[in-house]
Amino acid sequence: MSSGSDYVRPLAELAVQLGANVQPGQVVLVVSEPGKEPLARAVAEAAYERGAKFVDMYVFDIYFKRARVLHAAPDTLDYVPPWLGAQVLALGEHRAASIALSGPVAPHLMDDLDPALVGKDMLPWLKQIPEVVEARTTNWTGIPCPTDDWAALVHPGLEPGEALARLWRKVAHMCRVDEPDAVAAWRSRLDQLVEVAGKLDALALDALRYYGPGTDLTVGLFPSSRWQTVRFSTVGGIEHVANIPTEEVFTTPDPERVNGVARATKPLFTSGAVVSGLQVRFEDGRAVAIDAEQGAATLQTLAAHDAGAARLGEVALVDRASRIGAMDTVFFDTLIDENAASHIALGHGYANAVDDDDRERMNTSGIHIDFMIGSNELAVTGLTRDGGEIPLLLAGAWQLERAI
Amino acid sequence: MSSGSDYVRPLAELAVQLGANVQPGQVVLVVSEPGKEPLARAVAEAAYERGAKFVDMYVFDIYFKRARVLHAAPDTLDYVPPWLGAQVLALGEHRAASIALSGPVAPHLMDDLDPALVGKDMLPWLKQIPEVVEARTTNWTGIPCPTDDWAALVHPGLEPGEALARLWRKVAHMCRVDEPDAVAAWRSRLDQLVEVAGKLDALALDALRYYGPGTDLTVGLFPSSRWQTVRFSTVGGIEHVANIPTEEVFTTPDPERVNGVARATKPLFTSGAVVSGLQVRFEDGRAVAIDAEQGAATLQTLAAHDAGAARLGEVALVDRASRIGAMDTVFFDTLIDENAASHIALGHGYANAVDDDDRERMNTSGIHIDFMIGSNELAVTGLTRDGGEIPLLLAGAWQLERAI
Repeated sequence: MSSGSDYVRPLAELAVQLGANVQPGQVVLVVSEPGKEPLARAVAEAAYERGAKFVDMYVFDIYFKRARVLHAAPDTLDYVPPWLGAQVLALGEHRAASIALSGPVAPHLMDDLDPALVGKDMLPWLKQIPEVVEARTTNWTGIPCPTDDWAALVHPGLEPGEALARLWRKVAHMCRVDEPDAVAAWRSRLDQLVEVAGKLDALALDALRYYGPGTDLTVGLFPSSRWQTVRFSTVGGIEHVANIPTEEVFTTPDPERVNGVARATKPLFTSGAVVSGLQVRFEDGRAVAIDAEQGAATLQTLAAHDAGAARLGEVALVDRASRIGAMDTVFFDTLIDENAASHIALGHGYANAVDDDDRERMNTSGIHIDFMIGSNELAVTGLTRDGGEIPLLLAGAWQLERAI
Repeated sequence: MSSGSDYVRPLAELAVQLGANVQPGQVVLVVSEPGKEPLARAVAEAAYERGAKFVDMYVFDIYFKRARVLHAAPDTLDYVPPWLGAQVLALGEHRAASIALSGPVAPHLMDDLDPALVGKDMLPWLKQIPEVVEARTTNWTGIPCPTDDWAALVHPGLEPGEALARLWRKVAHMCRVDEPDAVAAWRSRLDQLVEVAGKLDALALDALRYYGPGTDLTVGLFPSSRWQTVRFSTVGGIEHVANIPTEEVFTTPDPERVNGVARATKPLFTSGAVVSGLQVRFEDGRAVAIDAEQGAATLQTLAAHDAGAARLGEVALVDRASRIGAMDTVFFDTLIDENAASHIALGHGYANAVDDDDRERMNTSGIHIDFMIGSNELAVTGLTRDGGEIPLLLAGAWQLERAI
């Protein structure tokens, strides 16, 4: 196993069978980038073998974005041609499936550009994506796709071939395709996460309190905030797993009741830039100060995108039993890193986690940016409506057996 | 100059400036394939430098098509998700520009598949493309993009690096980017072609007769058939050159008056298959027999696509003074090969070459497949309405000075 090529086919099959759960006769979109062709093609093949009617591909090229930021008129950088959003809506209308291949490509390509300009171009993010997610009309998933670029970022000290092979081994392990039956392994893990979510729901918490080095944050919850896993199902009843790997339970918080300071415990990679050493201070729900050692301007620009961009749309808890957390590796890919540690997200909330009344109060935005605040040093406590405090996570371990 | 990389930027600039003639504020679509990223990115950069508002990319992956033909239900192979055509129409509505990168990728990928199935999937061809071309709402061009795959097909005896370098040298020469001022060189050559077209128009021919080894074909013209070059202009007055290189003059024939037999003088590459040793017999306009040494079934399937698919939509004349003809090389790329030799095309006609009355009688189809019948051994004669015969091309040389 030198290049990871033995894992390509199993990972593609997992994405098609368990992730998107592609149905016979469905149209499938593969969202990819240059350099990800081997996995993209394996996904297409696995989807057709499972009976897909048509497999389309959307390719985003970060080099096009660099040329745009360098040369286009700054006041046009937020322009999006309408057919991109129309395609997303059409996927919903057609009850299509979607499989996105994550993992940074050319991660330092924007380093010499003005982060404020980089952040104005939100693509490949589109405001129609959360609309279709909320409508639950597509069965979708995201999976990691190792590339040479990404391997060099995660393992800069290794020779390129060895870096790629090591990243593939880690991705295969976290995606459980090194198991004899990856689908069965995931069903078991997802059952556990669903059980944790049920226990958290039973606590009927009013708020969460995060306390650790650089972090002292309280996040209010709605009365109807329900804890979720990414084991989703569509309006038509197709069960899908919205990302693989997944180790989180999450819900939609009250965007007006967030106070304190949160220090990110891992870098995040967004809009073509690495943001590291991030610290965010919240007052009455709003992020009023965003500081970072690197990439602050990118996140500041994103947080100014619209009225909801500086407020929270998600809180997620991850215990250290996760295979990703155990690796103690920064992957510079939100899909993976958010599943290594507890995190919060600026921007759009997940509407299906709250009831109709609270849905009108949940945060709405054109962005959704996760950042990781969890660590072994972070304690997460649940605050009940009657003033009680219940330990949820201590030293990265669930305290729920004691709590219930 | 070992890899052709020095030609990438000049070719991209030529495509943007002369080919599509991208205007400030325009949206531009780059139509590409995996492996063509260096030129695609150079085109994007040149377009943004010229003031483009947004450069989008559509990537077609022939490996997706292979998986589809192998595994999808045969009766679904002609399905096209509606958003692909909608995007083409939207480009027209937005008065966008479009730049396509031609050149075969993985040319033998379909060799082991059933050609009848391969021919059912017409993508990336879309029926909306000729609609938008006829409406003249986009300024578009196609340019060749050398890749390793393509170089190995054209120069199978060479080591890969040398094959690519030689293909790049040929492409650079035929695209005139080896000239100090490629744009000026093309303006001069296009002026010549426009002059030839004018002379042919002045003859007011009733038909063309092709005579040579394996070919004895008569093609009727409409009273209003006007000879064209690919120096087009949009409804908004943007002049563009629809493909670079170009060496042809062409018009739209009468699809009812084609009789005789035509033997292709070069292979053609279409729908992922190579068609070589092609011979087609026409009766009263219809291709009633299609034979080939290789790939006959692919073309037979394409010719059965719809009622117009077995009739001619184009006749084109190319003299041997063209830089491509002088290379005496088979490129397996219609964009280039059709400009080496006189050719005819099954399928949709070019509406803007005829007046309204004849437009209703011109051939319409969802396909347009050029194949080359010209050679030094082919004589092309013009037949006038009063029974006269005028030599047009003899031994690949224009006879027009004598004719007029």
